[in-house]
Amino acid sequence: MSVTNPGKDNAKENTLNSLLLDFPSGPLDLYRQKASFNWKELALFWDGEEIIRVKQDIFRTLENDPLFARQPGEDLTVEKNRELTFLRCKQLFEYDFLTLAEAVQSPLKAIAVLNCLGMYDWSLASVYSLNKQMFGGTVINSGSNRHHQFVEKIINMEIFGCFALTELSHGSNARAMRTTAEFDPGTQEFIINSPDFEAAKFWVGNMGKTATHAIVFAQLQTPDGVCQGLHSFIVQIRDPKTLLPMPGVMVGDIGKKLGLNGIDNGFAVFHNVRIPRENLLNRTGDVTPEGTYVTSFKDPNRRFGASLGALSVGRVSITGIAVMNLKLCLTIAIRYSAVRRQFGPTDHEEIPVLEYQLQQWRLIPYLAATYALDHFFKSLFMNYVEYQMGVLMKDKSETQAELGKEIHALSSASKSLGSWTAQQGIQEFREACGGHGYLAMNRLGDIRNDNDPNCTYEGDNNVLLQQTSNYLLGWIKAKHQDGVAIKSPLQSVDFLDDFNSVLNQRFTVTINGCMDCSVALAAYKWLVCYLLRESLMKLDDEKNSGKSDFECRNNSQVYYCRSLAIVFIEYNVLQRFHDFIHSSDTPINLQPVLERLSSLYGLWALNKHTAVLYQGGYFTGNQPARRLQNTVLNLCAQLKDDSVALVDVLAPPDFILNSPIGKADGEIYKNLWAAVLQGKNVLERPSCFEPPFYHGIKPTQSSTNPILSKARVTPPTPARSWLRALLICISSIFPGAS
Amino acid sequence: MSVTNPGKDNAKENTLNSLLLDFPSGPLDLYRQKASFNWKELALFWDGEEIIRVKQDIFRTLENDPLFARQPGEDLTVEKNRELTFLRCKQLFEYDFLTLAEAVQSPLKAIAVLNCLGMYDWSLASVYSLNKQMFGGTVINSGSNRHHQFVEKIINMEIFGCFALTELSHGSNARAMRTTAEFDPGTQEFIINSPDFEAAKFWVGNMGKTATHAIVFAQLQTPDGVCQGLHSFIVQIRDPKTLLPMPGVMVGDIGKKLGLNGIDNGFAVFHNVRIPRENLLNRTGDVTPEGTYVTSFKDPNRRFGASLGALSVGRVSITGIAVMNLKLCLTIAIRYSAVRRQFGPTDHEEIPVLEYQLQQWRLIPYLAATYALDHFFKSLFMNYVEYQMGVLMKDKSETQAELGKEIHALSSASKSLGSWTAQQGIQEFREACGGHGYLAMNRLGDIRNDNDPNCTYEGDNNVLLQQTSNYLLGWIKAKHQDGVAIKSPLQSVDFLDDFNSVLNQRFTVTINGCMDCSVALAAYKWLVCYLLRESLMKLDDEKNSGKSDFECRNNSQVYYCRSLAIVFIEYNVLQRFHDFIHSSDTPINLQPVLERLSSLYGLWALNKHTAVLYQGGYFTGNQPARRLQNTVLNLCAQLKDDSVALVDVLAPPDFILNSPIGKADGEIYKNLWAAVLQGKNVLERPSCFEPPFYHGIKPTQSSTNPILSKARVTPPTPARSWLRALLICISSIFPGAS
Repeated sequence: MSVTNPGKDNAKENTLNSLLLDFPSGPLDLYRQKASFNWKELALFWDGEEIIRVKQDIFRTLENDPLFARQPGEDLTVEKNRELTFLRCKQLFEYDFLTLAEAVQSPLKAIAVLNCLGMYDWSLASVYSLNKQMFGGTVINSGSNRHHQFVEKIINMEIFGCFALTELSHGSNARAMRTTAEFDPGTQEFIINSPDFEAAKFWVGNMGKTATHAIVFAQLQTPDGVCQGLHSFIVQIRDPKTLLPMPGVMVGDIGKKLGLNGIDNGFAVFHNVRIPRENLLNRTGDVTPEGTYVTSFKDPNRRFGASLGALSVGRVSITGIAVMNLKLCLTIAIRYSAVRRQFGPTDHEEIPVLEYQLQQWRLIPYLAATYALDHFFKSLFMNYVEYQMGVLMKDKSETQAELGKEIHALSSASKSLGSWTAQQGIQEFREACGGHGYLAMNRLGDIRNDNDPNCTYEGDNNVLLQQTSNYLLGWIKAKHQDGVAIKSPLQSVDFLDDFNSVLNQRFTVTINGCMDCSVALAAYKWLVCYLLRESLMKLDDEKNSGKSDFECRNNSQVYYCRSLAIVFIEYNVLQRFHDFIHSSDTPINLQPVLERLSSLYGLWALNKHTAVLYQGGYFTGNQPARRLQNTVLNLCAQLKDDSVALVDVLAPPDFILNSPIGKADGEIYKNLWAAVLQGKNVLERPSCFEPPFYHGIKPTQSSTNPILSKARVTPPTPARSWLRALLICISSIFPGAS
Repeated sequence: MSVTNPGKDNAKENTLNSLLLDFPSGPLDLYRQKASFNWKELALFWDGEEIIRVKQDIFRTLENDPLFARQPGEDLTVEKNRELTFLRCKQLFEYDFLTLAEAVQSPLKAIAVLNCLGMYDWSLASVYSLNKQMFGGTVINSGSNRHHQFVEKIINMEIFGCFALTELSHGSNARAMRTTAEFDPGTQEFIINSPDFEAAKFWVGNMGKTATHAIVFAQLQTPDGVCQGLHSFIVQIRDPKTLLPMPGVMVGDIGKKLGLNGIDNGFAVFHNVRIPRENLLNRTGDVTPEGTYVTSFKDPNRRFGASLGALSVGRVSITGIAVMNLKLCLTIAIRYSAVRRQFGPTDHEEIPVLEYQLQQWRLIPYLAATYALDHFFKSLFMNYVEYQMGVLMKDKSETQAELGKEIHALSSASKSLGSWTAQQGIQEFREACGGHGYLAMNRLGDIRNDNDPNCTYEGDNNVLLQQTSNYLLGWIKAKHQDGVAIKSPLQSVDFLDDFNSVLNQRFTVTINGCMDCSVALAAYKWLVCYLLRESLMKLDDEKNSGKSDFECRNNSQVYYCRSLAIVFIEYNVLQRFHDFIHSSDTPINLQPVLERLSSLYGLWALNKHTAVLYQGGYFTGNQPARRLQNTVLNLCAQLKDDSVALVDVLAPPDFILNSPIGKADGEIYKNLWAAVLQGKNVLERPSCFEPPFYHGIKPTQSSTNPILSKARVTPPTPARSWLRALLICISSIFPGAS
């Protein structure tokens, strides 16, 4: 029992209250008062005061700037959307929320800035970072001193950049890009060409309307006629003054997408476009003025790998983007469910839909997943920063190389897990909010649409998972063949060293009904080992039947390389969350709720693998599955009264959330009604109105219309006695949906 | 061995070729030539010549009418979309594709018309049927002779109708609607009132801009002060000549939705709106001129049920709508996957992505599901027509009543299964088409967005599944308590009569590697019985712990009433498909491919329940799951070469499909490229362009701007020696997504 210091507690309370304001009183009070913990305390612990202040600063700045004003559910054309996004992006350059020095000092602050912008609008965050970080960053990472002029111009917004790798007919297979860059020693220039339209650069963010410069990936050809493989070049595509295309460049906009329509994704076809020799980004390979290719890499595969290395950070970030989307949508769905009432124990009493077990089971596990994934994202991001520092310090140690591989494996899978969890969660939330979830103003649709490409870009999820399973298979093979101990810098695979003993374990729970996180962790370790063994066996079977390596690999993906990668990353997310909660830094009074979240995440995620647990004999009899299921339901019930406070911790301000049913005051109907009435032309007649409007169908009309005369026009049917009978039939045939 | 008649075969061939034209030669030839069956023969068998001609007639008419012209991925404002949809709807009244007599003669033809329109655009099909069938049909079904004037005016398009049940704060709980209709004997009128904005009618299709009349559900109050429950009334809401609202009606548009933006969903608030007494739809209850309530139903619950009965057909139709969406998206995804090449056994040879096991596993089971669900939808629809004929013939038999209940149970679950299968399938297809699947012009997004409300309207899927599980629980209780034999008109539940012996069965496959449909059917029967028993036990447990009926029901949904309803409907879909394939009508040469489809659907769907099969002891050891998984993969591989021909059978013409990568010629890149170049302002400068555009950031600017002066503007950083080091760090922190 510790003796508390009332003065110290008061001071802490005052800090909390000045940092985080109370929410307005309203229908959500019911749940807020029932919370088992102080949401401000968790918010402070979760993000830290510094990050909270950074976020508040950005949120406030955007809210106060009329350029960032918007209306829920507004109907922007693609053109208008792009225009607004671009103007806002320009404004961000003026605001410069984070100086370079600040970013280096606190990388978490830097990523928080980007995620704050994204919570407002991912198009804006993308246009901003595609130019500044994707273009600028690649120039720095892949170029040399001679390219610094471009970076400075980017920072000053004198030019605007984009990153052009994908072509119309190639995406995943990056090596197969067909754009060429032929060196002409006579003029000291590269000549860029697209062999045909299938090799047009395509899908390039910022290229559609605004970029002046592109990093173009092309096959480098030296004058000796040798193709030196894919390299990146800075190609000016438009004149910054006029925005007109440069000679030989055909550049345009690929059109409307399912989401992210603030970004002008574009295409470019190059016809003998000449650029200075120095525009080759020459970190990994260069061409001398005489036209000789020089590189420090002997193996072109390794050189290619190193030049694409700059991309891998994207996967860590996408994990974070997916988590932010979950935060936004959870806030909307949980607050709505806490206020929306439907049915009840009697005809005269309705209860919040959050009280239904089914609704809890649909929503609350995603709340747990969001906390677990948010922690994983932040910690993996810090691992990446550590790795990048090593690169910067020219650390050539084996540990540094291993760290790079491990982060590659973890981020490939966490990007997939994050983007899919968000995709599935948002869809569940949309449905759980019923019709109102389908109303654009409530924003679930936009977030779903903007989240969707996370499953695809920076590597298709299914393709990426192969990177992770290959990493794991590599470790096991190394152990079997060379007897190496399995031990990685981040310890994500260390338990595999006990491969056989893990495989011998079986499900046991000693204390009745108590299933904490360790139960799920033990099961996950077994799952990884089991699926690893099964995958190896499958690969061997395929090989023994005489198939090529290519076929063996392809035929082992569904069962079980794909599942292997998924359980591996789920295990790691859970393990890190568990360790974090039980570290000494975590305030004791926050541990119970965090433990419930980690147990729920673990058991809910594990429950999807119940079939494999039985198949491999880890589970036997009906008890294990039943225990798992009942514990998930119990945890949902226990977290139900905390769930509003748990989203209060994660939620951005109303202005950023921009969803009437997700507002902090919980006045779902008032807010929705107000937003509807503020819509455009709500009460006006349709734009196409002109009298006479409903004039009835007159057969004469159609006969004057050459098209209509083809149709079988039926004259108005008189109300005969048999009409009613017929109509009953027909009305059953043509139903409507309302 | 049958002796064939070459002359007869030639005649049949000629009919086929004149009815169904060959597809243009191109990249899809590869797969089309490998198909194991003649696609025209399957198309003829699947739809029948009459339906094929109806479809072709509609498709051709729309394609030839300039009003129906459209561009892939065009960017319509909500306003323009509604205007176009409404004008097209008016045109449909002129075309009148199906006369009343035709529809009664062939109900399948009638539903084919609606689905053809829907494949073109679900907004159009909905606006059309909401008016004609939802409004008109309800007037006929719930009204009497005195209402026929409204139906005639609807058919002649002198008025335009909508169906107003849902309110802002009530959806699923229909009985809790709060709009009132008070009878005033003095004027022989009902006075319609919305007590407050939360009782505003909301989400009503066609109400936003165009409807002149609404069927309004309101609590009927007689002059004696008694509330007689929810009734429906015809309320004029706008003047057909001017489209201005009637006095006391505040009516408007609820705004943009996630999809279906051609429909003007609206709201209405009523303030002392007076309508004639005769506007009460009086099939189930009426008010005399003196103000006395008269009804033939003694139990108000039964009266309410009967008045909502007209809605149940919607669920059958939604099953069909979901199937049509699957057909559209499958066509796009399979054709694209058959042409798109990525990676290959060597660096110089790429193979179609359809050749990858993983891609087959993602797509082909949905192809099987689409065939199975399409057959189920059509046969359930015919059951419904039979039932409606009984209603019309005033059949009061017990069989007729049982048929109604059974169709209610089947359609509640098939609507959920269909809409979710489509939702998940479309998402999988979107991802399986990579970036190009995310481009609006390829239409996967629109279809996903338009399919989404199928999960919600006409009853939320999760809520509807309770109807089905209640039906099954009712049968078991009746057998246990009253000893009745379990036997239903459509035989969907008959196997439950052997409840205990089914439960004693275990998984066995005698012939090695051969898993036909009967394996899945046997497993499904066991699953239904097992989950039924578990649900009953759970309900008993809850009851024994002293909970109310309301709580018992709620706490038994996740485990296992929900799964029970799902396995029951999957079993029925599979059983009907199996019976159909093995009927004597099915041509012998088509049976092999159809059998593969039914086996694949059965085993793939069953595989999702593997955990339960193990949990309940139907499966033991690792062999059953492995057999299931391997058979699914084998069937996918066997169907791979047939899959293009199988979508050729289901696909609408290119004009209707409206997706460059889904076109029948398979020229995915040419079509995509052409569509991109035909976009609006593709090569033009952005609309917001005016020089100077990229002028660089000048601190003086921001100081003149009161908002910007708040921001921490950093002057351009000189290229110092430490800049590079810093930039490497920062570039790793701000990644971009391309």
